[in-house]
Amino acid sequence: MGQPIRIAIAGYGNLGRGVEAALAHNPDMQLVAVYTRRPPDQLETLRPGTPVHRMEDLAGHAERIDVLILCGGSKEDLPRQGPELAASFNTVDSFDTHARIPDYFAAVDAPARANRRTALISAGWDPGMFSIARVVGEALLPDGATYTFWGKGLSQGHSDAIRRVPGVAAGVQYTVPVPEAVARVRSGQRPTLSTRQRHTRECFVVLEPGADAEAVREAIVTMPHYFDEYDTTVNFVSAEELRRDHGAMPHGGFVIRSGNTSAGNTQLIEYGLQLGSNPEFTASVLVACARAVHRLHLAGEYGARTVFDVPPGLLSPRSAEELRAELL
Amino acid sequence: MGQPIRIAIAGYGNLGRGVEAALAHNPDMQLVAVYTRRPPDQLETLRPGTPVHRMEDLAGHAERIDVLILCGGSKEDLPRQGPELAASFNTVDSFDTHARIPDYFAAVDAPARANRRTALISAGWDPGMFSIARVVGEALLPDGATYTFWGKGLSQGHSDAIRRVPGVAAGVQYTVPVPEAVARVRSGQRPTLSTRQRHTRECFVVLEPGADAEAVREAIVTMPHYFDEYDTTVNFVSAEELRRDHGAMPHGGFVIRSGNTSAGNTQLIEYGLQLGSNPEFTASVLVACARAVHRLHLAGEYGARTVFDVPPGLLSPRSAEELRAELL
Repeated sequence: MGQPIRIAIAGYGNLGRGVEAALAHNPDMQLVAVYTRRPPDQLETLRPGTPVHRMEDLAGHAERIDVLILCGGSKEDLPRQGPELAASFNTVDSFDTHARIPDYFAAVDAPARANRRTALISAGWDPGMFSIARVVGEALLPDGATYTFWGKGLSQGHSDAIRRVPGVAAGVQYTVPVPEAVARVRSGQRPTLSTRQRHTRECFVVLEPGADAEAVREAIVTMPHYFDEYDTTVNFVSAEELRRDHGAMPHGGFVIRSGNTSAGNTQLIEYGLQLGSNPEFTASVLVACARAVHRLHLAGEYGARTVFDVPPGLLSPRSAEELRAELL
Repeated sequence: MGQPIRIAIAGYGNLGRGVEAALAHNPDMQLVAVYTRRPPDQLETLRPGTPVHRMEDLAGHAERIDVLILCGGSKEDLPRQGPELAASFNTVDSFDTHARIPDYFAAVDAPARANRRTALISAGWDPGMFSIARVVGEALLPDGATYTFWGKGLSQGHSDAIRRVPGVAAGVQYTVPVPEAVARVRSGQRPTLSTRQRHTRECFVVLEPGADAEAVREAIVTMPHYFDEYDTTVNFVSAEELRRDHGAMPHGGFVIRSGNTSAGNTQLIEYGLQLGSNPEFTASVLVACARAVHRLHLAGEYGARTVFDVPPGLLSPRSAEELRAELL
């Protein structure tokens, strides 16, 4: 093994912390520093020795960093940071606003290409590993249908939405696949399923003092886009119950490709994830992708890339010879 | 879409027939011809119009073929054909003798490289899709363990082995994962499992007239390498029952990576296949890989390759833009 790959983290929320944890399991990489918008001395990193700098210091540190992992959010941070930082760094991010991916790709591609940098966007598990399952499933079974089920898992966006409802002090939302729908898909039937038939939504809500429970329930289950197309259950719990029973961030789900290779022969491909911690798993994907980005950059592949462009072997610390001998 | 990719099939058993079936679902590819060692006029192809030639005619047809899919066996055919044909053609094969892959890779790599050809070896589902699951699982969860379970499915090698037992007129063997072992792995436990604890073997045997059933059973269950390390059940059936109930070639299984991203957080990745027809699915993988080989060759990537070297997007007929917009 040569010099370790020098990694830096931009943004230190749950995801950034997950990246720090993941790097501890990857001895071929080294965490150079964390960059944050908060005052650096107020940041408590997982490892006490991790250097912490201000985000503005990044510009002067390009020579120290092989790959910068962007751990900001897709709404506010990445649309600005992604294109800006791809001009000076090789980057990996988890931009996950599916509808805006083509625009984001173009915005990152131009500066990366102009400055001979490599930028892998939209890595994680969805987009990311699930996307790969969709592409490969479709390529292997062209006569077929693809189904993505999420959960059971805590949805950050939907949890935020219920917390904005007047009368709600706190709350979380779980997305749950409908077992009957899953069973039908696994049987090879290729059913047509409505939004309501695929998932249910389960909320655990702490009311503000004096709030009207029934009004809150009604406001949640009828909320456009977020809940109105689903069967939603609202459970009222105490602040203590919420903390005790709903503090983790599990998630997961599965992508199923169901198809036929001939009239009589049904084939089923299923890729599933059962995640104890959503941000830590996403972070682990980003870290493996950082290794691939470093190698793509060394090979002269400049510009924006996605997981569709990454040969699986580049994710592994092992050599191609070793992979062929031991894992093929 | 430009000119279709011109595909030829070398060897027309179950796998070659599966490739012909798969090509019908891939309009960006065109089946140019089937090459066989049998007399061409005795070959009945799936589509009556498919041209059939003698294997010896291949040498003169290099200009007509973009990718040649080798559908011979790993024992006798591929060790000879693979290196020989990779000197004149871009090839894809399903060489599946795991222990000999490094030697086979080297034997194919040299002539392919010398003649600027691209040769993808050991594609299929195992080696192939399962191998990718093993590499990616390990890369994403370095602190973890990988488990491969096969079945329930018909094993060709073990079926051949029981048919060689004196007194056996015909028979098939199914490999079956042990449900308790699977459940323990899925629970995130990372158990250590012996060969016997992972799979059982189930045989359906037709006896020759006058054969001693108990002697046949004993010869099967004690057969070294094939059965002695497993719990094996032998069922005696009539020739008619065997034909009626055991004529299909289902297979499948799953690769599970179980790991931790931090002390408290267990993560599980599972890639599973449920195959109505093993040869037809393997053939579908070969066909998607042929598309990738054609593109790698156009990009100037010469020499032997494996599925670890193939970016997932290259397997798909869709453009990179389309994949990003619709499947990421």
